[in-house]
Amino acid sequence: MSKYLLKYEEYRTYTEEILQKALSEMHCHTEVLQKSIDYSLMAGGKRIRPVLFLAMMETLGLDYRSERAFAVAVECIHTYSLIHDDLPSMDNDDFRRGKPSNHKVFGEANAILAGDGLLSYAFELLIGECYKGVRYVNAAKTLASAAGLQGMVAGQSADLLHSGKSVSEVGEAELQMIHFHKTANLIAAPLIMAANLAEKYEEETREFGMSLGFLFQVTDDILDETGDEREMGKTLGKDKAEGKLTCVKVYGLEKSKRLRDELTQKCLALLDKIDANTSFLKELVISLRNRNK
Amino acid sequence: MSKYLLKYEEYRTYTEEILQKALSEMHCHTEVLQKSIDYSLMAGGKRIRPVLFLAMMETLGLDYRSERAFAVAVECIHTYSLIHDDLPSMDNDDFRRGKPSNHKVFGEANAILAGDGLLSYAFELLIGECYKGVRYVNAAKTLASAAGLQGMVAGQSADLLHSGKSVSEVGEAELQMIHFHKTANLIAAPLIMAANLAEKYEEETREFGMSLGFLFQVTDDILDETGDEREMGKTLGKDKAEGKLTCVKVYGLEKSKRLRDELTQKCLALLDKIDANTSFLKELVISLRNRNK
Repeated sequence: MSKYLLKYEEYRTYTEEILQKALSEMHCHTEVLQKSIDYSLMAGGKRIRPVLFLAMMETLGLDYRSERAFAVAVECIHTYSLIHDDLPSMDNDDFRRGKPSNHKVFGEANAILAGDGLLSYAFELLIGECYKGVRYVNAAKTLASAAGLQGMVAGQSADLLHSGKSVSEVGEAELQMIHFHKTANLIAAPLIMAANLAEKYEEETREFGMSLGFLFQVTDDILDETGDEREMGKTLGKDKAEGKLTCVKVYGLEKSKRLRDELTQKCLALLDKIDANTSFLKELVISLRNRNK
Repeated sequence: MSKYLLKYEEYRTYTEEILQKALSEMHCHTEVLQKSIDYSLMAGGKRIRPVLFLAMMETLGLDYRSERAFAVAVECIHTYSLIHDDLPSMDNDDFRRGKPSNHKVFGEANAILAGDGLLSYAFELLIGECYKGVRYVNAAKTLASAAGLQGMVAGQSADLLHSGKSVSEVGEAELQMIHFHKTANLIAAPLIMAANLAEKYEEETREFGMSLGFLFQVTDDILDETGDEREMGKTLGKDKAEGKLTCVKVYGLEKSKRLRDELTQKCLALLDKIDANTSFLKELVISLRNRNK
């Protein structure tokens, strides 16, 4: 295994540990709520958002094990968004990470509550960190903004609104807005949180994070068109079938692939602005570009 | 109009003002999300939670106009909980405050998103306050705990779980748990937040707040049985029809009324422990006991 993969595995394993610990501290009053949260939070996956936080912490000279609340909070918010997005009235997805969606197992009411609970828990964690000083409040604010009405919720609302519309009706700017708000924000946030905590390279990290977020979305849209359903563990071609405004729909497959490569180069160039050992992050950029799931 | 009613009206009017201002600052990206939030947040109602915050602020010697974020946040969280609770998969309520429920007007997806957005917005406001110091973080933490996995979400989960069960199956302790978590918590929280900010009588206020919360729930359950649907602006008798574990179901109507009167006396006695002019709060307790909507 390469040094990069070993390091990724180290971060991922640590993420699983702290999520398991968080789960054991949630003490949900009802068993069904605890199980429903457990089911979705511990469903595995790449854990890319907490890994980005941990990697950026270490890149900027901090002990990546020192601030677990932020890593847990970003994964809780990501998980809540998946549970709510999969609901029948939203994207109506029956599978997630190769398993039936939360509402298929626990019913819609428990899925809605599990999402509400995870979002609330994430914010409880963040507010608990605010006692430690301004840089902690900055980091909490970064995640709250990324998740909120002008962040992920706005993106999901626009995504729903524009489903089924043609590209010319909606336009390229709106597509960027959806990707920016729905995906890029929550990829950038963990990176920026680490920069907030380190009080270093906050602007550079924001720029890198947003570009990485776009890259993530573009590769996701390409995979929705060309990927392997078993590898991905979710229903593919759905975005296309539902008329979702994906990159591939707007630009076509070839231009999307060119955009992916441009974004890859941009990410690498932006990392060069950070005077630290960014080799792990650079390899992560490349591996995101090349991912097949 | 009595001095008490004039004062209540002053707090309520100020609440409407700051909610309207908050709404204008939300800048939702899609019109449908903005309208859906506007619809539920500005639907009127007693505004009891923000009024309790403002009244406790003034009781403890603070300018009630000085900390609007907390008053707005508690009403946003209350409104999110109503929108999600009314959903077809949850309590399936078609009416709220005399108007069709949010999902009846905007559809389920937008209702779920409006709730998610309001919850996120409330927490963004709270985190924004955390820059101001420890007492602000304490107040933010109070509301986060009341809303979260060990607060309102737990209560709603238990309420759903026990619907249709008999009293002997579930027991009095669990009924208290549901009322405590689902309702009393979010009645107590604004009072405690004011005490956190004043750094005075925090324990006394907590005890008073929880008793007031129970009183609120008991009168609600009595009204569900005996109230006037037009006055209340919502479907009545539903809790009973759905086999919800109400006070009236557990204790019967007469014992519930006695409990209401005991709680009223308890609230008044607890207010005597606070060395300040609590006459507004005392009249509020009486008026809650006597309410018919």
